[in-house]
Amino acid sequence: MNDNWPDVGAFYHAGNTCTFTVWSPLSQSVSLLINGQQQPLLVDERGYWQVTLPGIEPGNQYQYVLDGGDPLPDPASCWQPKGVHGPSAVADPSFTWTDQAWKGRPLGELVIYELHTGTFTPEGTFDGIIRQLGYLQQLGINAIELMPVAAFAGDRNWGYDGVFPFAVHTVYGGISGLKQLVNEAHRRGIAVILDVVYNHLGPDGNYFSQYGPYFTDKYKSVWARAINFDDAYCDGVRQYFWQNALRWLDEFHIDGLRLDAVHAIWDAGADHFLAALQRKVEALEKQTGRHKLLIAEFDLNDPRYVERVEKGGLGLASQWVDEFHHALHAIVTGEKEGYYEDFGEYWHLQQSLRSSYVYIGQYSRHRKKHFGALPAGIPYSRFVAFAQNHDQVGNRLLGDRLTTTLSFEALKLVAATLLLSPHVPLLFMGEEYGEQNPFQYFVSHTDPALIEAVRKGRREEFKHFNWQGEIPDPAAIETFNASKLSWNYSTDPRAQTLLRFYQYLIALRKSSPALCCTGREHLDILPIEDTGIIAFKRCAQ
Amino acid sequence: MNDNWPDVGAFYHAGNTCTFTVWSPLSQSVSLLINGQQQPLLVDERGYWQVTLPGIEPGNQYQYVLDGGDPLPDPASCWQPKGVHGPSAVADPSFTWTDQAWKGRPLGELVIYELHTGTFTPEGTFDGIIRQLGYLQQLGINAIELMPVAAFAGDRNWGYDGVFPFAVHTVYGGISGLKQLVNEAHRRGIAVILDVVYNHLGPDGNYFSQYGPYFTDKYKSVWARAINFDDAYCDGVRQYFWQNALRWLDEFHIDGLRLDAVHAIWDAGADHFLAALQRKVEALEKQTGRHKLLIAEFDLNDPRYVERVEKGGLGLASQWVDEFHHALHAIVTGEKEGYYEDFGEYWHLQQSLRSSYVYIGQYSRHRKKHFGALPAGIPYSRFVAFAQNHDQVGNRLLGDRLTTTLSFEALKLVAATLLLSPHVPLLFMGEEYGEQNPFQYFVSHTDPALIEAVRKGRREEFKHFNWQGEIPDPAAIETFNASKLSWNYSTDPRAQTLLRFYQYLIALRKSSPALCCTGREHLDILPIEDTGIIAFKRCAQ
Repeated sequence: MNDNWPDVGAFYHAGNTCTFTVWSPLSQSVSLLINGQQQPLLVDERGYWQVTLPGIEPGNQYQYVLDGGDPLPDPASCWQPKGVHGPSAVADPSFTWTDQAWKGRPLGELVIYELHTGTFTPEGTFDGIIRQLGYLQQLGINAIELMPVAAFAGDRNWGYDGVFPFAVHTVYGGISGLKQLVNEAHRRGIAVILDVVYNHLGPDGNYFSQYGPYFTDKYKSVWARAINFDDAYCDGVRQYFWQNALRWLDEFHIDGLRLDAVHAIWDAGADHFLAALQRKVEALEKQTGRHKLLIAEFDLNDPRYVERVEKGGLGLASQWVDEFHHALHAIVTGEKEGYYEDFGEYWHLQQSLRSSYVYIGQYSRHRKKHFGALPAGIPYSRFVAFAQNHDQVGNRLLGDRLTTTLSFEALKLVAATLLLSPHVPLLFMGEEYGEQNPFQYFVSHTDPALIEAVRKGRREEFKHFNWQGEIPDPAAIETFNASKLSWNYSTDPRAQTLLRFYQYLIALRKSSPALCCTGREHLDILPIEDTGIIAFKRCAQ
Repeated sequence: MNDNWPDVGAFYHAGNTCTFTVWSPLSQSVSLLINGQQQPLLVDERGYWQVTLPGIEPGNQYQYVLDGGDPLPDPASCWQPKGVHGPSAVADPSFTWTDQAWKGRPLGELVIYELHTGTFTPEGTFDGIIRQLGYLQQLGINAIELMPVAAFAGDRNWGYDGVFPFAVHTVYGGISGLKQLVNEAHRRGIAVILDVVYNHLGPDGNYFSQYGPYFTDKYKSVWARAINFDDAYCDGVRQYFWQNALRWLDEFHIDGLRLDAVHAIWDAGADHFLAALQRKVEALEKQTGRHKLLIAEFDLNDPRYVERVEKGGLGLASQWVDEFHHALHAIVTGEKEGYYEDFGEYWHLQQSLRSSYVYIGQYSRHRKKHFGALPAGIPYSRFVAFAQNHDQVGNRLLGDRLTTTLSFEALKLVAATLLLSPHVPLLFMGEEYGEQNPFQYFVSHTDPALIEAVRKGRREEFKHFNWQGEIPDPAAIETFNASKLSWNYSTDPRAQTLLRFYQYLIALRKSSPALCCTGREHLDILPIEDTGIIAFKRCAQ
């Protein structure tokens, strides 16, 4: 109801003052350690502790002391110069933006390119991405989607172990590096989507529970303790993540957020965290005059997430549709294990072309239950499809891409199926030239027990599959290095051909009215008896 | 999708044959022990085991043997002649109904009377209730709501520890006794609502997990393990409870179900268990030409449960609105402890009169979070209100009613506030004549450890309240006996006066068009400065 909640974090103002705000509703005292001094904070009735201090400069390091305990980093830190266990640092948010004319991009016209900052280029930085923006522009994509950049333990991580959701991993280039990337991308007409994780927090460097009831045991989450979105004291937790989302979209000019695994954002309250977030994002759209998109990943085949609010939905702009991938992958590879046991027939892909979801209430053998519902009347533009992505490649035992399995002609078939499909297409970095290097799972936690737990977890994850070979060691730097793109298209003629084919398809898609995302009435699946052929017709509105 | 699921249980046919069906998807073999013989059952692909046998008579006792283990009662038993641990028995479902002209009653005209079969009359049986139907008719109520009658361990229980949802507690009169009650009630124009518990199963005599994955650990439930409505194998569990609901509404001619604590029916699937149940109930309404009502109890202030399906709701007919009670109770008693800390001011009651819920997004001190949403546009008829009920009386330390606390004039004020309110009113047995006996919490489990756990649980439940006195022993028969109605209105003149006042108010409500449940536009809260007065105006449509 009351939108006047204090912004958490350290806010550096002109004149070398800085306001520090931290939420810790159960602490009796909170003080700030900075520049060798300890400053007490004052608390409001909601548990927000605050102090404004003069004489602060960007780069000054600080920690909080709760009830006389050990000094801790700020959970809303935007800079962890010495890693996740070290102190937080005051950052200067000022940046000279030159994207004033940028309006963002509407959903329907997006062609998205997912990348992992650390392995996309040899440098593994935002600067590295900036140097490749010309290449991406030539490819024709008009949005990049960054795997999570929130600060995590160690140097190497997919990003889903982040423990400072407001901080940008220092090795990638920190907050100014990210702003530079967004500004340059906008200059080239490319939107920037950021993957954010609001369903759990990473295991290493996670100081949240010392600050307050950030977690709940009402729900059993897969990866870690569930975040408290609906239990006592959830207001401060909800605010924390709302503020996080808005910070990226507003201060960083980010165009959209890919919300990781929202089925694990448990909220049984009357105003769902995501519905309220969508309202706040729409307010920001109005205020900035720019498209701001929320794209949810979830594994429920429940149209409610992207359904309009008037029809009882949460109103999110879009969602990932894994089943398009599964249907396509199972047909072209013939794989039948794990979740692919629910796919592999031609009608599965036809069904996804028709209704995005394949399972709309049928029995799923893999899930051992009836599953899903029909997203009736929801346009294709609200569904992002892909033939590969970080999960579908990286969560294979060897992290092998389709290039390992498929013939060259089959790769082209996959490309065309994706890019001519009615859904918003997403490519995974390197897919466009048939990258042969794998994308494997890597971490660089400091705790050996944790590394062993990760190794064990990977083995567990693969038990449903009949994959052969040794699991690459997630903690080895070789695994990280092996996952870097080779960029070999300039020396490999077939890679060059495939790249040109992707360029052609993307250009075709963008220039043909019939291939722009439309309502479901503008696609026909053609009845062809030969089960080796799927044909569909798309027409303009 | 496929509605042709086998009905679970033992179905006695003409000609002394009987079909036995049990769901046990993970068993390798299931056989039936009956009349000294062991019969193997055949399984279908969904895990339903079935056999039809000749030479069976009503009263024959049977058990199932799973994978050669100990004989167990049938989870869908409708008769447990020797208690919850004993064998199940075949029942004859035939009954001579005389209520062919009965059409049920629409929500808006209901005046509900909640009662507990065991303590309503000295006999503590359905026959006892039948003998009081004339009294209830004279009182003017037109629906009785039975606290749960599903078979539970021991003789005495509120009913929320039921472990055979299809069986009727034998001591009350079993299934034929219940049918007799419904038939007689209908003859007198009284609808019958049955309280059913689909959020957990009782602790004593609970053999469900031996039959299959009835439970899940995805959610942490308050009372027991959460029931598996959305995890692997949930189809059989969902069917089980859908069939249970339909059995009452169809075979037993029950007019409505009060669904206990549906906030603990956890279902994150795309087709919520309750939404699907509502569709099935509407189909039965069409088929029978009778009103069939689902009335949910929940603690979320989330209009989604009773919102129409077209607007994204679950479409349930109605819900209990505890906050009307809390607002009224806190004003008239002055109590401020436990959840009453969120109430006690006059605007709380005005708010409930206006929008049913009091908390529609404000901060709740007791819950320590912002709570609820406005049920905009949902008519009053979808909300059942009360000044007392089994929970609000029985979950007090001494189980004391308002008669213990309030003056006689205040009792009349409470009566008028409830019966002239726009919500559907519900009385708790004895309220109408100012019963002085308490309604206390009682169980008769057989396991001493369980009884101790219950005692401990009660103490825990009361810790937020500053109530004085000794907690009555839930396991003592004296506690049960003390909770029986005294029926002293014939000897107590004040009781007689109060009873006449209730009769008058109910008659007034039923005869005045302005007092029938209407849309929210037909009620005005009058602005009166004196904070000791709340005035509202109701007008006819």
